Amino acid sequence: MTETVDLRVADLHPAVDDPALNSMNFLNEVAQHYPDAVSLAAGRPYEEFLDVAALHRHLDRFRRHLADDLGQSPAQVHRTLLQYGRTKGIVHHLVARNLAVDEDVTVDPEAIVVTVGCQEAMFLVLRALRADPRDVLLAVAPTYVGLTGAARLLDLPVRPVRGGPAGIDLADLREQVRVARAAGLRPRACYVMPDFANPSGTSIGLTDRRRLLDLAAEEDLLLLEDNPYGLFPAPHAGRLPTLKALDSARRVVYLGSFAKTVLPGARVGYVVADQRVAGADGTVSLLADQLAKIKSMVTVNTSAIAQAVVGGALLEHGCSLVAATVRERAAYGRNLRHLLDGLARRFPAGTSPVRWNVPAGGFFVVLTVPFGVDDALLHRSAREYGVLWTPMAHFYAAGAPVDALRLSVSAVTPDEIDLGLDRLAALVADETARRAATAEVG
Amino acid sequence: MTETVDLRVADLHPAVDDPALNSMNFLNEVAQHYPDAVSLAAGRPYEEFLDVAALHRHLDRFRRHLADDLGQSPAQVHRTLLQYGRTKGIVHHLVARNLAVDEDVTVDPEAIVVTVGCQEAMFLVLRALRADPRDVLLAVAPTYVGLTGAARLLDLPVRPVRGGPAGIDLADLREQVRVARAAGLRPRACYVMPDFANPSGTSIGLTDRRRLLDLAAEEDLLLLEDNPYGLFPAPHAGRLPTLKALDSARRVVYLGSFAKTVLPGARVGYVVADQRVAGADGTVSLLADQLAKIKSMVTVNTSAIAQAVVGGALLEHGCSLVAATVRERAAYGRNLRHLLDGLARRFPAGTSPVRWNVPAGGFFVVLTVPFGVDDALLHRSAREYGVLWTPMAHFYAAGAPVDALRLSVSAVTPDEIDLGLDRLAALVADETARRAATAEVG
Repeated sequence: MTETVDLRVADLHPAVDDPALNSMNFLNEVAQHYPDAVSLAAGRPYEEFLDVAALHRHLDRFRRHLADDLGQSPAQVHRTLLQYGRTKGIVHHLVARNLAVDEDVTVDPEAIVVTVGCQEAMFLVLRALRADPRDVLLAVAPTYVGLTGAARLLDLPVRPVRGGPAGIDLADLREQVRVARAAGLRPRACYVMPDFANPSGTSIGLTDRRRLLDLAAEEDLLLLEDNPYGLFPAPHAGRLPTLKALDSARRVVYLGSFAKTVLPGARVGYVVADQRVAGADGTVSLLADQLAKIKSMVTVNTSAIAQAVVGGALLEHGCSLVAATVRERAAYGRNLRHLLDGLARRFPAGTSPVRWNVPAGGFFVVLTVPFGVDDALLHRSAREYGVLWTPMAHFYAAGAPVDALRLSVSAVTPDEIDLGLDRLAALVADETARRAATAEVG
Repeated sequence: MTETVDLRVADLHPAVDDPALNSMNFLNEVAQHYPDAVSLAAGRPYEEFLDVAALHRHLDRFRRHLADDLGQSPAQVHRTLLQYGRTKGIVHHLVARNLAVDEDVTVDPEAIVVTVGCQEAMFLVLRALRADPRDVLLAVAPTYVGLTGAARLLDLPVRPVRGGPAGIDLADLREQVRVARAAGLRPRACYVMPDFANPSGTSIGLTDRRRLLDLAAEEDLLLLEDNPYGLFPAPHAGRLPTLKALDSARRVVYLGSFAKTVLPGARVGYVVADQRVAGADGTVSLLADQLAKIKSMVTVNTSAIAQAVVGGALLEHGCSLVAATVRERAAYGRNLRHLLDGLARRFPAGTSPVRWNVPAGGFFVVLTVPFGVDDALLHRSAREYGVLWTPMAHFYAAGAPVDALRLSVSAVTPDEIDLGLDRLAALVADETARRAATAEVG
């Protein structure tokens, strides 16, 4: 007798069967199945600097801020922290101050929507922009899987734009806009991570940032700038202005995260959406207000308690996350350096066909190997070699394996990097030999 | 010169211009515009029992639970509270225990997804079920606007089922299923709030609950049971078993909220989705796991800090929210009694044409008046009479005004109820006279 079933996957939204939505699940399952493997896969922040005691301190600090700085009465403080709250959030003024202090970006706090992590921010923006079956999104490839998944849930096709070593191929972006429009489609925006992108690690240079903004104006395109890693340049590498800082024409919708700078467990992010939106009746509103309407039907508002923790952390450092993340920046910079040095030792330029890029910061390095890299190889790597990494194929539209893998330095120690790289080098050597043998036999 | 605009509402998803999404905004704006008016409109919980100090206590309690009861190491506790977390949540086992203790419902904790409030739970379920343009949702009318809005965001039409004094008209439900199917549509589920519904205040009797489950089985229909108010019966009124407690055939997807029982500011709710889902490859999963995939692309996971606060509150009372809400139940029961008595004094049965229902619990009473009730009247009520309430038209598909309004007793004191009802009685008297005069002139 077969097991009774109540529903069929085929009767649910097709996204639940999509590679993008199953990718994270798959990678988490592999990690759980091999807990003793060294993980050069996890993109989560380093845990040592997170602090349970800080939760209480930040909550108290934000409570005092409401009373002392904003002049709220005890009843108002009580209501702000404990009741249903403002849809656009209660730390918007601190986010605006943070953007002014750290990014030289001046925004009206009313143009900010505080969200349940950056993921909800992306989701709200894509929901707003996807109005019609002709709408498509452009995204620099390889693409963060959270973007691809959110778009899939909203039946919004994502069309890749070549990334390349410069972070974005502007000629290809222009071409993709042309091709989409020629096909009767509406490219609503281009998604881009200009600083130390996930998964590629690449950054867009200053000149190209300006050119990208010009192109967006010429082509009447919005840019969705996602910036989770911008505060983590490698030691002695500088930080570049964000697209939003260079944006004088409200072309950029800016997606912000506190997961890597304050606390992943808070699930607080935000979107800056200062675009002016004309209603049929001639009224003009901010895009942020349209996003807030959508948010009211997705999550109502972001947890006030979670926001208070982030608010307190911001206040503790004068709203500067550059100041708040000195230790993190040092650790990530050290790890990135250690990984790059370790790769150079294990895969010498003259003799090894293995190649990698040299990111100017962030969490990720892409390693190109002389063979296809698929999920089966990841399983084998975990089981037989004890090292985890991420197949780059997960960041491209479903299809053939890609001959590259992503290494992450965010959640490991230098010793773990050494151990992981030793194991990875063994895998690469064995796999190269195995495939050479197969080729000879073939 | 006209103001520069960047986008047009007409180019965004049509939901942003929909009455359902603008309804809450409108009502909030009226409330903000008349802060001195007595609010018989607000459905938020009573604030006096909320407690900032409890946040710290609950956080600590849940932290100890992770270590002492679940045996987590200090590093694991740290990770559970502060890192990215399990998509389906970290208080699922406590939610399951709560359902066993308070609702006599036995569910596998793996069938629970902890969500950013009940709103996200609804959103995830509707996203999963809306697979095709032929899909429609049935919902008892008048309908909670959060359901209507979520469905609108997902392009899922909502078709009303008559509610009436019994809470649901089962013959009409059967007829609406028939009509939809005859039109080539797929009714995926029927949304129902069997206990003290928002906005109607009505409840479904035990016999009708069983009949509804039978009908769902016969028609192969899921039931979405939303139960935010079930713990608040009027004094001496009993509680009925939930549909989920009576559900022996996994027909019910149960939507739970902690906003009214623990803390609105936490934004923690959940869905019980124990339905078995068959994949094309023959694998069988829980609907909860399909919802988790969707959640991973909407909010990733629910704030661990917010969950910890709710978890601590549950632990403090042995996971019984019946035990935790003794004061709240007394206050809401007293207020409901006070409102009903006050209505009877001000609108005597023999002489007044005003009528109202007598809910067996919850926050809401519907008042029927001898004139149409629209937003303009609400504005006048706020401005000239100093009392707020909710036009029932907001809970029906857009159209003509309805001659009824919703009164809420959740966020007021008995004195405020008296004051509000005095003002409301004055409005009703003036409006009845005014319309009578207009009719005579006409």
